Amino acid sequence: MKADILRAIRSSTDYISGQELCERFGVSRTAVWKVIKQLQAEGYDIEAVTNKGYKLLSYPDNISGCELMSRVNTKWAGRKVYFHKEMESTNEYAKYLAEEGMDHGSLVVAEMQTGGKGRRGRTWISPAGQNIYMTLLLRPLFSPDQASMLTLLMAVSVAEVLHHLHSDLEVKIKWPNDVLIGDRKVCGILTEMDAEPDYIHHVVIGVGINVNQTEFPEEISSTATSLRLEKGEHVDRAQIILGVMDFFEYYYEIFAEHLDVSDFVEVYDSYLVNRGREVRVLDPKGEFEGVAEGINDKGELIVNLPDGSVRTISSGEVSVRGIYGYV
Amino acid sequence: MKADILRAIRSSTDYISGQELCERFGVSRTAVWKVIKQLQAEGYDIEAVTNKGYKLLSYPDNISGCELMSRVNTKWAGRKVYFHKEMESTNEYAKYLAEEGMDHGSLVVAEMQTGGKGRRGRTWISPAGQNIYMTLLLRPLFSPDQASMLTLLMAVSVAEVLHHLHSDLEVKIKWPNDVLIGDRKVCGILTEMDAEPDYIHHVVIGVGINVNQTEFPEEISSTATSLRLEKGEHVDRAQIILGVMDFFEYYYEIFAEHLDVSDFVEVYDSYLVNRGREVRVLDPKGEFEGVAEGINDKGELIVNLPDGSVRTISSGEVSVRGIYGYV
Repeated sequence: MKADILRAIRSSTDYISGQELCERFGVSRTAVWKVIKQLQAEGYDIEAVTNKGYKLLSYPDNISGCELMSRVNTKWAGRKVYFHKEMESTNEYAKYLAEEGMDHGSLVVAEMQTGGKGRRGRTWISPAGQNIYMTLLLRPLFSPDQASMLTLLMAVSVAEVLHHLHSDLEVKIKWPNDVLIGDRKVCGILTEMDAEPDYIHHVVIGVGINVNQTEFPEEISSTATSLRLEKGEHVDRAQIILGVMDFFEYYYEIFAEHLDVSDFVEVYDSYLVNRGREVRVLDPKGEFEGVAEGINDKGELIVNLPDGSVRTISSGEVSVRGIYGYV
Repeated sequence: MKADILRAIRSSTDYISGQELCERFGVSRTAVWKVIKQLQAEGYDIEAVTNKGYKLLSYPDNISGCELMSRVNTKWAGRKVYFHKEMESTNEYAKYLAEEGMDHGSLVVAEMQTGGKGRRGRTWISPAGQNIYMTLLLRPLFSPDQASMLTLLMAVSVAEVLHHLHSDLEVKIKWPNDVLIGDRKVCGILTEMDAEPDYIHHVVIGVGINVNQTEFPEEISSTATSLRLEKGEHVDRAQIILGVMDFFEYYYEIFAEHLDVSDFVEVYDSYLVNRGREVRVLDPKGEFEGVAEGINDKGELIVNLPDGSVRTISSGEVSVRGIYGYV
């Protein structure tokens, strides 16, 4: 109800009366008043004028569930937000919620992670209050071998949001799922699933975005960046989260019809940092080098080899010449 | 150590002295004596003769970790057994152990399950003390799209064990993973994985075998059976568990080299109840009927359609004419 009241005040161009809020949400005046007091205590500047009602003058930089749910405009992606200041890992918490039966599209958000994860068991550095650590829970009706494409959809959603909000930045994607500014990593994506061989129970897509972090540990200081470092100013996190939900929902619904990424090849390739560059592929069957051309309808990376042959890569590590070996 | 002492006594053709047991396992005489007392209390008939030592005369029908680990002859499959009298679900417990870092090949065994699971969220009826409920934990190095074949390996392992131990029974496999006696289901297999799109964290393969159960709930009484019902006598469970570990380990090592089931097509098809029979396939893209021919190298079911065309099925529900709609 708190998010609903905040949304009502937020979306009203003029003052909204306490009476109207009571009627709309079927609660008492005291209940409304208590919520307003809470919001004010959290930093929302809500003006209260007798006989007129409430008006939101400003709001804090805040990624709480209440804030996000009062601003979300999607049908299902991120409409329910599970926010905690501290989590071990948003992916692990989302898996737990999945077991508890939470809906497709539920979003887990944390201010910090004590055990943030990267791909293949690596660590994702997750200091408090600066960045975005979120995980979207999905219950897809397609089969596990199609889940790899969800990672690409998320990568392109993040790239699109960053590009649209910050058009001065050179946003790139390193196949399959890292988002870069220039040649430095600003976002990582970790997709995990719980599945039977032909049936997905649930998928969680974790997204870590370096937003306002200004200092990085030495081992990644030359390969990682943040939006703040690139722009030289503080960046609003909630807007990015909400934007990613918008783009991802839109793309997901298109994807779910065709079950391939044919509709996204062009936009994905337009961000692809690997494109036209020499890449080294650490294939399980042996390392090889070539020039990346783009992705195909299955989301595989097309690589042209020096001997004129073409290989497609569905998994494995790819490093790009001139770019540090990102995780 | 208890399992080690039991194994030593078991594998000794003559009396084995307390002194030898002390030296072999580096423990005191009192410790050995305590273990013998425990085993005797659990129903092991161990004769103790002064100046000669211990000899195992008989042992109880028992699927405890100690019993299984004292008899297992594999390299890794089932060498570590986690046994509890009661579990919610052996698959869930195995997943928990996987998160805790337990080894590839660890085996979870329960006397009963309070929340036993079948495929796609169905229930597996799991009364106490009569049947086998076990889950094998694997940490494969191949990719998620190859995991479906593990289900087939387990099905053929169970079929082989039942066939070799009880050659009077007509053991069949209903593709992909039900084991039948005649036309009735005696075993179900539930494979689940925790994975990134191109990287398996772990796989758990749950196996439920109706061994000594004689009464089934009405809704499955015409479609389910047990070894005891089919043979008319009590059947030893530990022998079956150990046999499945033997076969599965052998098959898994062959599989892991080629990453296809080409080496198993013949033996699998020899058990395949669908073979040469009319099948109805509930494909996500529409139902169709045909005659099943066998499996291919990827473990897919080859179905010949009335119009002369051939389709391969990698997932979905298949019902066989003349066989009840098994889960």
